[in-house]
Amino acid sequence: MMKTQVLTNTTGTETEINPFRVYHFGKVQNDGNASMRNLLGGKGANLAEMSSIGIPVPPGFTIPTSMCTHYNDNQQQLADALMIEVDEAITLMEQQTATEFGSLENPLLVSVRSGARVSMPGMMDTVLNLGLTDIAVIGLANKTNNARMAYDSYRRFIVMYSEVVKGMDAEAFEELIDAAKSKAGVSEDTGLSVEDLKELCLELKKLYTELSGDEFPQDPKIQLRSAIEAVFDSWNTERAVLYRKIQNIPASWGTAVNVQAMVFGNKGASSATGVAFTRNPSTGDKTYFGEYLINAQGEDVVAGVRTPLPISKESAAQKCLDGQSMEETMPKTYVELTDVFEKLEKHYADMQDVEFTVEEEKLYILQTRNGKRSGFAQVRMAVEMVEEGLVDEKTALARIEPSSIEQMLSPIFNLEDKANAASEMVGKGLNAGPGAASGVLALTSAKAIEYKQLGVPCVLVRNDTSPADFGGMMAAEGVLTVRGGATSHAAVVARQFGKPCVCGLAALKVKESTGEISIGDKKIKEGDAISLDGSTGEVFFCKIETSASEVIQGIIDGVIDPNESEICKQYQTIMTWADKYRRLKIRTNADTSRDLKIALSLGAEGVGLTRVEHMFGSDDKLLLLRQVMLAKDEQIKTLALSNIEHFLKEDFTALFQTLNGRPATVRLLDPPMHEFMPHGDADTAKTAKALKITDAELRASLGDMEEHNPMLGFRGCRLGILKPELTRVQVRAILEAALELNSAYIPCKPEIMVPIIMHENELIHQRTLIDKVAQDLFAELGQKVSYSVGTMIELPRAALQADEIAKHADFFSFGTNDLTQTTLGISRDDANHFLPTYKNGVSDPLTGTGNFEVYPDDPFQTLDQSGVGKLVQLGVKGGRSTSKDLKIGICGEHGGDPASIDFFHRNGLDYVSCSPFRVPVARLSAALSAIRAEEVE
Amino acid sequence: MMKTQVLTNTTGTETEINPFRVYHFGKVQNDGNASMRNLLGGKGANLAEMSSIGIPVPPGFTIPTSMCTHYNDNQQQLADALMIEVDEAITLMEQQTATEFGSLENPLLVSVRSGARVSMPGMMDTVLNLGLTDIAVIGLANKTNNARMAYDSYRRFIVMYSEVVKGMDAEAFEELIDAAKSKAGVSEDTGLSVEDLKELCLELKKLYTELSGDEFPQDPKIQLRSAIEAVFDSWNTERAVLYRKIQNIPASWGTAVNVQAMVFGNKGASSATGVAFTRNPSTGDKTYFGEYLINAQGEDVVAGVRTPLPISKESAAQKCLDGQSMEETMPKTYVELTDVFEKLEKHYADMQDVEFTVEEEKLYILQTRNGKRSGFAQVRMAVEMVEEGLVDEKTALARIEPSSIEQMLSPIFNLEDKANAASEMVGKGLNAGPGAASGVLALTSAKAIEYKQLGVPCVLVRNDTSPADFGGMMAAEGVLTVRGGATSHAAVVARQFGKPCVCGLAALKVKESTGEISIGDKKIKEGDAISLDGSTGEVFFCKIETSASEVIQGIIDGVIDPNESEICKQYQTIMTWADKYRRLKIRTNADTSRDLKIALSLGAEGVGLTRVEHMFGSDDKLLLLRQVMLAKDEQIKTLALSNIEHFLKEDFTALFQTLNGRPATVRLLDPPMHEFMPHGDADTAKTAKALKITDAELRASLGDMEEHNPMLGFRGCRLGILKPELTRVQVRAILEAALELNSAYIPCKPEIMVPIIMHENELIHQRTLIDKVAQDLFAELGQKVSYSVGTMIELPRAALQADEIAKHADFFSFGTNDLTQTTLGISRDDANHFLPTYKNGVSDPLTGTGNFEVYPDDPFQTLDQSGVGKLVQLGVKGGRSTSKDLKIGICGEHGGDPASIDFFHRNGLDYVSCSPFRVPVARLSAALSAIRAEEVE
Repeated sequence: MMKTQVLTNTTGTETEINPFRVYHFGKVQNDGNASMRNLLGGKGANLAEMSSIGIPVPPGFTIPTSMCTHYNDNQQQLADALMIEVDEAITLMEQQTATEFGSLENPLLVSVRSGARVSMPGMMDTVLNLGLTDIAVIGLANKTNNARMAYDSYRRFIVMYSEVVKGMDAEAFEELIDAAKSKAGVSEDTGLSVEDLKELCLELKKLYTELSGDEFPQDPKIQLRSAIEAVFDSWNTERAVLYRKIQNIPASWGTAVNVQAMVFGNKGASSATGVAFTRNPSTGDKTYFGEYLINAQGEDVVAGVRTPLPISKESAAQKCLDGQSMEETMPKTYVELTDVFEKLEKHYADMQDVEFTVEEEKLYILQTRNGKRSGFAQVRMAVEMVEEGLVDEKTALARIEPSSIEQMLSPIFNLEDKANAASEMVGKGLNAGPGAASGVLALTSAKAIEYKQLGVPCVLVRNDTSPADFGGMMAAEGVLTVRGGATSHAAVVARQFGKPCVCGLAALKVKESTGEISIGDKKIKEGDAISLDGSTGEVFFCKIETSASEVIQGIIDGVIDPNESEICKQYQTIMTWADKYRRLKIRTNADTSRDLKIALSLGAEGVGLTRVEHMFGSDDKLLLLRQVMLAKDEQIKTLALSNIEHFLKEDFTALFQTLNGRPATVRLLDPPMHEFMPHGDADTAKTAKALKITDAELRASLGDMEEHNPMLGFRGCRLGILKPELTRVQVRAILEAALELNSAYIPCKPEIMVPIIMHENELIHQRTLIDKVAQDLFAELGQKVSYSVGTMIELPRAALQADEIAKHADFFSFGTNDLTQTTLGISRDDANHFLPTYKNGVSDPLTGTGNFEVYPDDPFQTLDQSGVGKLVQLGVKGGRSTSKDLKIGICGEHGGDPASIDFFHRNGLDYVSCSPFRVPVARLSAALSAIRAEEVE
Repeated sequence: MMKTQVLTNTTGTETEINPFRVYHFGKVQNDGNASMRNLLGGKGANLAEMSSIGIPVPPGFTIPTSMCTHYNDNQQQLADALMIEVDEAITLMEQQTATEFGSLENPLLVSVRSGARVSMPGMMDTVLNLGLTDIAVIGLANKTNNARMAYDSYRRFIVMYSEVVKGMDAEAFEELIDAAKSKAGVSEDTGLSVEDLKELCLELKKLYTELSGDEFPQDPKIQLRSAIEAVFDSWNTERAVLYRKIQNIPASWGTAVNVQAMVFGNKGASSATGVAFTRNPSTGDKTYFGEYLINAQGEDVVAGVRTPLPISKESAAQKCLDGQSMEETMPKTYVELTDVFEKLEKHYADMQDVEFTVEEEKLYILQTRNGKRSGFAQVRMAVEMVEEGLVDEKTALARIEPSSIEQMLSPIFNLEDKANAASEMVGKGLNAGPGAASGVLALTSAKAIEYKQLGVPCVLVRNDTSPADFGGMMAAEGVLTVRGGATSHAAVVARQFGKPCVCGLAALKVKESTGEISIGDKKIKEGDAISLDGSTGEVFFCKIETSASEVIQGIIDGVIDPNESEICKQYQTIMTWADKYRRLKIRTNADTSRDLKIALSLGAEGVGLTRVEHMFGSDDKLLLLRQVMLAKDEQIKTLALSNIEHFLKEDFTALFQTLNGRPATVRLLDPPMHEFMPHGDADTAKTAKALKITDAELRASLGDMEEHNPMLGFRGCRLGILKPELTRVQVRAILEAALELNSAYIPCKPEIMVPIIMHENELIHQRTLIDKVAQDLFAELGQKVSYSVGTMIELPRAALQADEIAKHADFFSFGTNDLTQTTLGISRDDANHFLPTYKNGVSDPLTGTGNFEVYPDDPFQTLDQSGVGKLVQLGVKGGRSTSKDLKIGICGEHGGDPASIDFFHRNGLDYVSCSPFRVPVARLSAALSAIRAEEVE
């Protein structure tokens, strides 16, 4: 039934628009389907889709978005032709539901909702029970045999209509309700009697008349017309316009209007309402899972006034509710419902979350959507649905959120224990390192190590952490900091080592002097219990039991047999599929062979980033670096350099040996110099002694080195250029290690990476130096090894000049942490002064309420694609314009973030490198990206 | 005489190359001219050009760059055909100079030089006196009647040939010379007798034979062949290749070889040598200016062993050297020389710097080039050459370096006094603010103000400066800092107020406690004399007299009548021409009406940047900001906000009134917050009291506010978004001021500018807020004024997202200071840890010598066109893709830098805004850019 529709607009010309003015949905006539989202909006398209496959949906119709545009193009006038079709559609609904608008016996009531292509705040919400009038309310009372409910609905409808449709101020109406309550001597709405409600309805209608000059409309069609106009008008409210501006939604899209017959689950014992999942959303188990209430409306299930009952006999039995399940009380309808479940699951080829109502034994489905599920359930359902033949591997994979895999790796709280601890929850910081940790409070690294030695699990709490806290962090079960974001030192180290971590809990006060921490009026001391959930950011001042996940126990620790664990087997299946479909290689950021072993067992294919500065973790190694930087005596310097070469060589040998031929990228020293220099009197005195200079001399040198903005200071290759001796010993150590392994027939071709390149001349300098050091070494030892030299792209200038830089680089690796800092002008260490508020909403300039979202994500967690991403694109384009096959990777924190990985996939990178525990997430994400890209093609 | 030349290369195929194998220059045959630079190299082209206009140039020939390419394409073999032509060319030279290669009477000696299109380090230097042999040296001795000179030349030639041409190690030769000296019992080379030198020549030749296995060549043609090969080989030395890589010079360009007959100014009383300018390079006066020496070689003039004499009678008379000028001693040749001067000046249409030699009354011109001249001379010559009809206005303008104008504005040292003070020069920092300053040493702002009140001129010396030093800087004659670069606080403020300033003199030690400063072993105390030259960076520990420039006295101070001053008139002429040709508008960065008045008298057309944070200069105003940021008592905050609104309104009123309808861009508050907060105990206590909180509470709040990298911290619009009340009072103050002026019939349409925009949502937020505040204010006052809202583009993300941002901006202004910091990842406050070394040369990775130039300029002075410039281009493109006619300016320090202004001109900006004293430079630069752009078209 395709016809071209012609409307005369106010200027007299005729406009050809979409074939229908209204699109019916329901059993009798159904004009749409899921693909018509742009025209019918999301809500309308889905209602039509369900109808199209024979699901019993309460009938209704959708006025398409094109009519909204027409309305706005014609001085906010509803076309007469449209209203004629609306009338016809109402008639059809009346026929189907055996009701009538305004009827004293069986009135037709409808809901009216807006529905754009995408959900949008600022637009008109739902108006329920439209069609209620002084007469219809009697009809509703009769029909439901519940006069109280009928008049309560009526008084709500009057207020909703006045406020939402007519834009009247809610306050005056609220005053009348309050007056009614005080007159009746009750404090709750529910205390009002039928008579009270009837009188209240009269008062409300009177107020409506006072405010509008009109009677409250007693013709449902007039109500409907006004509601349609209100939906269309809501498209252009100040708030909606501002939102569209921010989200870049064109005004021309418009909104649809959905008008649907109301059904009633509260028409007695043969009526009911409920929600259900077609499989268990917690465990993934293939059993129906849901709740229902007899003689109730949808909101009753949610409101919690009555306790809902399980739908299936089995669940009911588990809860000792024999004979009360829907399977038992409404066996016929239950079968109908499970048929719908099967049909829906098959149609959408996914687990469904279904809302239903039974009106006098007649089943209606009000909504279905793909059901949300826990990470474990996602994985299990994916594996089982493929086994069942419901979906193929790619589709199954595409359903899994990559963070589910992370959940499978993280230590976990016992859920019940956590729920019981809810009252001890003191705050929520940044969920910086997933997993659960519980232990006693430790405020210093030394204390944490002490507890560790005593065998007492502890949680390290610091204002922020520095490399000096490394030992303490390793000793602790988890880490909590007051300052710092998702890529702060604490967070990076925590994720690297799989430590649960919460960062940036700004409200927390740490008093090291008294050994106390407090938040608001809650306070604990060192030794008291504290727990944190790094997956959610929650912090508790109490103990909660945790355990290592099955996957960790089976795959890494080897304490259980992975073949005996269903969860391990599911994990392995998913990973095998992921590896089959992904194009991106996955490397890891590892500085020790210990990290590296974990990463390899989790599937890493090489090292994308070894940070030489992380090899200076211990006090004696730190001292060597201080000697090179600060000593005046050349002998001390020379000896220190030689010692550095020596220990680095050992570290590299261990690392390369573990890699056993896999690629290894080593980034030359890029220390945050201020963190590496002595702090405090004792440290300064000790260092001065080792440097054979006075404390005062050392302090003077440190003063000279001090920087206002160390992030933009003397670091990276700037150091290697001004102190070529540092580059020299690193290169020697790397190549000596490689030579030694090659002699032992272990292949190794190191990739040497130069950091913080801003100008090609810097790379020319370092590359020339590296090649010279290599040639000298090879001549010295009479042996050669092949190696390559590449660079980090981590400053905007490097990305912009990538073509020039590529002339001197064998590979690129994007350092998106630093690139984000400079591109956005945000220091990640200081971002918590404003970035969390940007995300959570700042004060709205129009209303003053705190819901103006400035920046949707944490750019240090998820790549800022339209800013930093553009530089990545320019860098890739520039680099490959010089070297067609230039190998390009990324080794920032974004290498473990699914959305960012997708971006890197789409932009042709060769690999991503992430911290060891992120490797499985990256493998899955890379596969999802490949699958998505195929779909797009 | 154009012929096509065919050469057979080693693979047997024939290559068609350039018409000649050698290009003659000189009177008898001259094949080239100035336009053939690519083929003949710069040197060769210029020699040919001079010959072509009849200037007497010693004859010779150029082997073109194409032969170098041919040589390299053919396994480093010189083509036989080439060597035949070289022989012929030598014969021609012999004929012209009546000499003969290797002659016992009158030997032909030649110089051999490399000469590429552009001058290039790493390439072969000059070999002089080629042609000397055991026989020719006798000929030279006879010819010059100076056996000592002849053998000294021979021994030098042997070493130079061995080293430069044959690549032998210089050290062994040096040892022989040392041995000769100790044998003769002398310490200087000049102590060696003719006999000593003869013996030394023998020893040196013996060593040559030992090292090479060959006799030292006694055939000048063999010497020449080897020298030609050496020049070509020098094109491919490691050093030259590395340099080309850095400078992007293609290997295919090759170098030319210049072979030129040597002439001798030391052949007795009728011979001489000298250098001269066709006009006075210091004053611009149209009189010949130069020096000469009778019976001398060129190097004698430079070496200073003998004192050269003036060439003109007039100059000689001034120096009481009657009868000794060339005009008097060699009247005929002097007339020939001045004829050459006139011819050259006319030909090149510019003042020439000429090197000449007279060999037995015959005049030779060895070199001419456009003469360097002082700023004053540049301006005077430009004006006078136009008056003379020698050049047109555009050409004259194009000759003036914009910095000349700056020189005309700067206070000046008396040149003689400065020369006398040379021994007190203690170091050279960054020439951050032009001009000369002299006074007593002041180490604190308070001290500087005290001296000012006593009427004692002083120079303020600080480690670095902050807003708290503003008063002291204004009180001082000049400012010197130990830290900080060309855009440090000190430098920016100094230039803004025309204060001479030297920054980053790192070797200086400041001891405030003892009131001393020292550098090396030189030390002075507060109250001692110190002087600095901000145009050169020189610092002196003594007094040197200074005075304000005539232009300042005439144009700004009005203490002299500009029409009575030649210099003022010249300045005005140049500025009038500049305004005639420029397209870019010139605005100024001004925060007070005092600055603004200066800028307007120097030609500014409006304000491009008023920094609201600079209006918080005094202690009481600072306190208001601290109250807003830190007070817990809402009443204190509210009162502070209202006081801020009040004083800002007054400041804006004064500013807008002075502008009198010219455009005014006001940038909302962007304070470096850490500089605005209290420092030290006293300040903290005072502030705490004003905030009605305890010192401890204040310290805690300050601790919370502390940032690791304030440059990337809580600033700019981030402040205005989280503290909308601050935006509110600023906008109210701006608009109230505008309304008041409009009421008094003074037009004013403020441009409100939002800083540090990273995301369009930030601008939407601030713009929505500004519009709301404006509407509320207009409603409140019943009056309206028009205004516009724009944004700074100063973060890479803003430039990359300019299309989105432009949707909400009426104008853009590039903040290239911050954009440079983030794009290059360099904090301008910390850059002196490495940036000066990058510019001056770091250790070369191959040789270890400190001549590897990483980055040629200070990117904070001259825009980094290939990095930051790309973002400016993307920003302009993006912005104008959204709004075709978007007004775009720039208000960073680069707005006053000529090279940067040229870039902004070429990229279609509408205006540049610079500090008041830079306005004339900007006017001239903009004109030069327009003229250059025309030439390119």
